[in-house]
Amino acid sequence: MSIISFRLVVALGSMALIKPNNPLQTSLAFSVLGYLVVESLVPRLSQSFIKIGLKGADLSKTNKPVLPESMGLVSAITYLFIMFFLIPFVFFKYLVLFSDEKIENTYTSQYESQPHTKLFPHNKLAEYLSAILCVQSTILLGLFDDLFDIRWRHKFFLPAVASLPLLIVYYVDFSVTQVMVPPFVYKFPYGGLGIDILEGTIDLGNWIVKAVTGLSFTSGADTTENPTLIDLGVFYYFYMSAISIFSPNSINILAGINGLEVGQSVVLALVFLVNDFCYLLTPNITQAAYDSHLFSAIFVIPFLGVSCALLKHNWFPARCFVGDTYCYFSGMVFAIVGIIGHFSKTLLIFLLPQVINFIYSVPQLFHIVPCPRHRMPKFNAEDGLMYPSFGELEKPSLLISILHKLGLVRVEEVKTEDGGKVTRFSNLTLINLSLVWFGPMREDKLCLLILSAQFVTGMSMIAIRHTVGPWMFGYDNLSWGVK
Amino acid sequence: MSIISFRLVVALGSMALIKPNNPLQTSLAFSVLGYLVVESLVPRLSQSFIKIGLKGADLSKTNKPVLPESMGLVSAITYLFIMFFLIPFVFFKYLVLFSDEKIENTYTSQYESQPHTKLFPHNKLAEYLSAILCVQSTILLGLFDDLFDIRWRHKFFLPAVASLPLLIVYYVDFSVTQVMVPPFVYKFPYGGLGIDILEGTIDLGNWIVKAVTGLSFTSGADTTENPTLIDLGVFYYFYMSAISIFSPNSINILAGINGLEVGQSVVLALVFLVNDFCYLLTPNITQAAYDSHLFSAIFVIPFLGVSCALLKHNWFPARCFVGDTYCYFSGMVFAIVGIIGHFSKTLLIFLLPQVINFIYSVPQLFHIVPCPRHRMPKFNAEDGLMYPSFGELEKPSLLISILHKLGLVRVEEVKTEDGGKVTRFSNLTLINLSLVWFGPMREDKLCLLILSAQFVTGMSMIAIRHTVGPWMFGYDNLSWGVK
Repeated sequence: MSIISFRLVVALGSMALIKPNNPLQTSLAFSVLGYLVVESLVPRLSQSFIKIGLKGADLSKTNKPVLPESMGLVSAITYLFIMFFLIPFVFFKYLVLFSDEKIENTYTSQYESQPHTKLFPHNKLAEYLSAILCVQSTILLGLFDDLFDIRWRHKFFLPAVASLPLLIVYYVDFSVTQVMVPPFVYKFPYGGLGIDILEGTIDLGNWIVKAVTGLSFTSGADTTENPTLIDLGVFYYFYMSAISIFSPNSINILAGINGLEVGQSVVLALVFLVNDFCYLLTPNITQAAYDSHLFSAIFVIPFLGVSCALLKHNWFPARCFVGDTYCYFSGMVFAIVGIIGHFSKTLLIFLLPQVINFIYSVPQLFHIVPCPRHRMPKFNAEDGLMYPSFGELEKPSLLISILHKLGLVRVEEVKTEDGGKVTRFSNLTLINLSLVWFGPMREDKLCLLILSAQFVTGMSMIAIRHTVGPWMFGYDNLSWGVK
Repeated sequence: MSIISFRLVVALGSMALIKPNNPLQTSLAFSVLGYLVVESLVPRLSQSFIKIGLKGADLSKTNKPVLPESMGLVSAITYLFIMFFLIPFVFFKYLVLFSDEKIENTYTSQYESQPHTKLFPHNKLAEYLSAILCVQSTILLGLFDDLFDIRWRHKFFLPAVASLPLLIVYYVDFSVTQVMVPPFVYKFPYGGLGIDILEGTIDLGNWIVKAVTGLSFTSGADTTENPTLIDLGVFYYFYMSAISIFSPNSINILAGINGLEVGQSVVLALVFLVNDFCYLLTPNITQAAYDSHLFSAIFVIPFLGVSCALLKHNWFPARCFVGDTYCYFSGMVFAIVGIIGHFSKTLLIFLLPQVINFIYSVPQLFHIVPCPRHRMPKFNAEDGLMYPSFGELEKPSLLISILHKLGLVRVEEVKTEDGGKVTRFSNLTLINLSLVWFGPMREDKLCLLILSAQFVTGMSMIAIRHTVGPWMFGYDNLSWGVK
């Protein structure tokens, strides 16, 4: 009873925080409400999920309990509700009065004359809506994946499909405003992408530099100030599409132990928020940079709330699994924030552990070396600890030898049942590598270790982003960076 | 082989119709492609649906075959794809250049000076996006209903939840532009609905007249011409919400025989299109009326394509069921078109058979008279015909006696097994009433009969809408109406 009344107090308290002209504070309030909703709904809905077959056995426990799968759906739907309800708090209400141009101009100029207002001008509404549409499509596709067990080679591209609305709206609405385009493009109003490719000023070399260094060069903040702004043309769409494929999938493959999928998402959300508040709390940044990071914060804060509640139930010993639905949902929220907030390169450096895990996994994912069906670490019922899992080498592999010399894989020779010998190597995932390096440990310790690495990486990257970045490019959109 | 090559020719032919500056034609092309996709996907995906438990027995057949359920999901997802891809064809590409006001003004004035252009100005993008978001939310909720079997009293309100994004965007973006509001409201930019209620000029009497007569009085066309335009304030939101609840549910309860859910949707789509083209082909109507009905046609044409393909597989003898997913999806498409196209009153008169079926069902739905678990007509395996199904009266009912005298119900006395007598009455649905009036018939004949009634009603309503309407109000937004 006291827990219920405590929750009631928290709920009422956060409702008091909801303010019509303060989206950040309202977002925080909704985040707390979201936490309470998800926290109480997950146990209530568990039986319904198990009943329709959304269930799985937790193999890393002694009694292998059957847990509900895809419970991330609860977080995801709650998140969607929050984002719907946030709309009136994020946008000007009476800004766009197409019938009365004078009033519109008054409000627009008011918006422009007050730097760092907390509400967005109305033209961002389509951006916001397409972002929600994109998240919702991802949730739908993630649910299909959980329901129908879509093949790996099909589901790899699913997030790109889900990001279609975002890319198309970006094309229709923002392509021209965000990237500088020579005036002759205007002469072909319906020419579309073709003209950008043929006649646009694409500087591919520069683009590759940016992609490799991962530094935000064409940030929304630069539009008015940076004279070296370039047109990526159609490549920008491929790039955005690639981000939206990579981000969800990279979270999906750094998984397999209790709490890791949600845990890494929570840590990532915290890193994003720290980065956003670096901008939001700096007085002298441009309106565009402020808007980008306000947008990001508004999307990430509620995400943090619904994820923390899920983490509570998914933490060791887990009472539910989160499903691909959650991994896709989480990855897409980060991708969208990076794309629409114009810091998709910064996004990639925050995802560094995921990038490393992906690159490290590539030999197995693309079957250069043998890949067993499951690569999760192995649970030993005797001491209750996790041990690395192994793949078997059918023939000697140069790649594994090299990795072995670099200390990046454990190689063992074991006797088979028929008396022969077989060489086996620890599966190529960050989880197994942690166990190889630091020895067997309990599931929650292992998860905490990886989450800490993620957090430290993220914080270091924020520091590097604003020190090495400006030194390389002579420009940073955050004014307190080293110049 | 020849069928495949025929399909290929049709597909290529319709792709040739896709034109960057002609959304109607492109919409038609996508509709044909959507038909081909759904038609070929439904049989392929049937086994996957059955495998995860989305299945049901067709009780109106001799052998009671097990069919896949919720196949409407295939139509719905295909529809979403089409609506995504349509975005660039429906909106100006280079219209909103916020960085360059001069160019924006040029294009805006171009748009305004060319009456009945086929592309929308950019400010409608948020409207379009919120409509898709709303359809997608409905599909998601419909899927949950099919998966989790949500209770009737909960699911009745589900469509209102799904229509939230539409209502909220409507509130943020269009509430002021669509309904005339006195200038002092502008003085309270964040005051919101409260002010509209307290100080707005609500004319409830007039509103009730409109609701009862179902005539489009505050149509988008009237904004500039009709001086009697009134402010419904917050009631307009309740009204829109009610429409979005009624439309999907009314389609969901006129169901139970092969082909009826999809069939009525196809007929309704045709009626909507006839009404839309009455406007689109009339030269002297206002831009606003033209836009409303162009919007409607663009949403309905692809819907017709994906629905016809589903109807092919759902028609007697059905090879699949469409599920609540489809009924919700279909109902919401009509609700959205009515709401955003500003002819939600006309929508209601097109849904007259559904309205009548709902009112006729009310005594059973609200348990004023007994309601058995299923009200579908009864299949007689001996002659292969459908017969009315019955509910049993525990005590005499005045209502049933009155309906009996009016010829609206069949009442019988039957002997029970223990020798007693029981009074039973045909269940209160249009389907049973048709069987009472016209005698037992085969399932497909029964379906055709109801669909014909729907079509005739729709066409008559279009005629009445533009003859009696102007006579009552002295005004019609369609210029060839009787004045």
